[in-house]
Amino acid sequence: MNQNKINLIKGNVTTPAGYSASGVACGLKKNGSKDIALVVSDNVAVVSGVFTKNVVKGHSLQLTRKHIADGKAKAILINSGNANACLGQSGYDDALEMATLVSEKINCKTEDVLVGSTGVIGVKLDMPLIRKGIDTAVNALSYTGGHMAAEAMITTDLITKEIAASFTIEDKTVTIGGQCKGSGMIMPNMATMIALITTDAVIEKDLLDRALKSCVATTFNRVTVDGDMSVCDKVIIIANGFSQNNAIKDNSPYYELFTATLMKVCDELSKMLAKDGEGATKLIHVETNNARSAEDAYQAAIAVANSPLVKTAIYGEDANWGRIITAAGYSGASFDPDKVEIYIGDILTCQNGIAVLFDEESAKNYLKQNEITIQIDFHDGTCCDHVWTCDLTKEYININGSYRS
Amino acid sequence: MNQNKINLIKGNVTTPAGYSASGVACGLKKNGSKDIALVVSDNVAVVSGVFTKNVVKGHSLQLTRKHIADGKAKAILINSGNANACLGQSGYDDALEMATLVSEKINCKTEDVLVGSTGVIGVKLDMPLIRKGIDTAVNALSYTGGHMAAEAMITTDLITKEIAASFTIEDKTVTIGGQCKGSGMIMPNMATMIALITTDAVIEKDLLDRALKSCVATTFNRVTVDGDMSVCDKVIIIANGFSQNNAIKDNSPYYELFTATLMKVCDELSKMLAKDGEGATKLIHVETNNARSAEDAYQAAIAVANSPLVKTAIYGEDANWGRIITAAGYSGASFDPDKVEIYIGDILTCQNGIAVLFDEESAKNYLKQNEITIQIDFHDGTCCDHVWTCDLTKEYININGSYRS
Repeated sequence: MNQNKINLIKGNVTTPAGYSASGVACGLKKNGSKDIALVVSDNVAVVSGVFTKNVVKGHSLQLTRKHIADGKAKAILINSGNANACLGQSGYDDALEMATLVSEKINCKTEDVLVGSTGVIGVKLDMPLIRKGIDTAVNALSYTGGHMAAEAMITTDLITKEIAASFTIEDKTVTIGGQCKGSGMIMPNMATMIALITTDAVIEKDLLDRALKSCVATTFNRVTVDGDMSVCDKVIIIANGFSQNNAIKDNSPYYELFTATLMKVCDELSKMLAKDGEGATKLIHVETNNARSAEDAYQAAIAVANSPLVKTAIYGEDANWGRIITAAGYSGASFDPDKVEIYIGDILTCQNGIAVLFDEESAKNYLKQNEITIQIDFHDGTCCDHVWTCDLTKEYININGSYRS
Repeated sequence: MNQNKINLIKGNVTTPAGYSASGVACGLKKNGSKDIALVVSDNVAVVSGVFTKNVVKGHSLQLTRKHIADGKAKAILINSGNANACLGQSGYDDALEMATLVSEKINCKTEDVLVGSTGVIGVKLDMPLIRKGIDTAVNALSYTGGHMAAEAMITTDLITKEIAASFTIEDKTVTIGGQCKGSGMIMPNMATMIALITTDAVIEKDLLDRALKSCVATTFNRVTVDGDMSVCDKVIIIANGFSQNNAIKDNSPYYELFTATLMKVCDELSKMLAKDGEGATKLIHVETNNARSAEDAYQAAIAVANSPLVKTAIYGEDANWGRIITAAGYSGASFDPDKVEIYIGDILTCQNGIAVLFDEESAKNYLKQNEITIQIDFHDGTCCDHVWTCDLTKEYININGSYRS
């Protein structure tokens, strides 16, 4: 419902009212690119977050989990080029100093500043550079600074990932803006991925938590590039209430509309993540239908999306559906192999688990496109799921064979 | 115990007494390479097998599981270049015809012939070629034909994988000979891997089953190239009793010695599989120590071994231990990140979960070698495990981007 009332906007975290942002270069990235992003709400806002399930957790993320516990925040600082992870107490101390420095300069409590770090693991943050960077970033804050902040968040990403969307509650326009980074080490349950979302909605903490969780489950947690999941990954949403809408109530059409708009923002960002996977030339959408259980649908979709053999076949524009059924078969999903149907685009390649003669030329032409859909129909139940991924290319090896050097 | 009484021999499936074999080209492989392997025991022998856990199973494998049920076999025929999978009844009929043709020519029951197929999925076997190939293969059988059979089993493998080992029971020499194929789509629980093992030992079916299972668990099931697991994979062992040893009894030192020798054969073949992984330039041994549970030790080892980021870092000769701890962290293994120690070769890179300053030059030199060891010590229990894998290279993409064409 109400889906048609959502307006997609070319925007980012400063598109909603009451947010300023900046992105500056402090020298963490050797090539001089921007590496400090700062986003500040004009007031202390309601905040919610979802974090990596990795047993190992970066120090900036640990601090942010602590600072987010009271459900309030005013600012978030993110550095790229260094993950601030596996450094013991000194890593945690550095994260705390970053939050403290920002809080002093923007006049808020240290606990109202969140921090994030992404990049190489096990190298101590160069704090003299960071301190200067924070100075510069605070001075550069602007109500149109979202794009600069997006630039400062990225690592091996080729493009920034930004989007916004709005809807109306009575006569008030509510806007949600988001941006994220992530390119490799992307796997469900928060990869080397940081997403920041802002909104000017008036919404309570509990509802914001619930909306974020439900949106992340089917968007960011349905993206995989290489099956790797990093120690620094999170999605943060801040709601500052500047749209002055009548508060969004539980079980109301406006809650549904807010969630649908947030879903749209998360979904668009997720697609951008997969499309910009390290070395990727093609975006791949794996859909599983009519599986016995939700878990079966998920397991099959993620196994196909993570299979290096499927991903290299798509790169090679080869309609090798044998690798697709093989991956579904070892995924742990339970299904009857004699009922399986596999489509590559609109082309039926396998029916009742048996090869179908299809036109190789049409398949080849379809696979030349930049966006490829793989559909598996198990004809064995009613559950479905989907995962976004990309092809696996030589460029992925190039990028990751020498990341630290 | 008794480990020192095992003699490793440059041999294969015809090294034990009473086995003939052949490998011929029938035309399934377009480049004219050998594609039909036949191994025959002089008598009807005791047989045991371990099969893929993929839900989808190739037709030749399905037939073999049926024929092996009575614990007896005389011959095994393997074709490469075509997996005989996902073809419905006609695939099963073709598998049965292959077994029937062999049985007629070597004078045994159809049920005593096993078959195997490996290669592309969903393409019907060219039976006219196969029929002629079986004729030629039977005529070419020789007591020194093991190597020819090994050549006929391979697909994208660069080298054949063959080894034998012997030990003595009283005055009788017992020999075990093995060979296998597999290069990509290799993952624990039988990948696109077929291993044939022969022995002249006198041993009962139950003991042979138990010995094979225990050896496969720590050898073939501890190899991963790309995390993909095929629909055709199996390990078959045939024991014909030609060494005339006093029968190997349960719980006896000779059972232990037999198992240790079989383990040695399986272990050597497993290393060859990982080393010849598609596009591989380096063999990687991932060891996990002092984990809380056996499952934790396994999960961490397999996640590190399957991580594209770890594998590309080793390819790039980059001591990027951050990716190792990250993979352990998302593996599902439970451990205390503040106790983790990581060694690359002898070089300590991380202690108590914290980066250790190490000599990058020494690390670089170590990583130039062809065999790399990664050790993770969790200091959190007493369980250990290990996995063999290889690096991930551009050549893997080359090979798999255009396999069907």
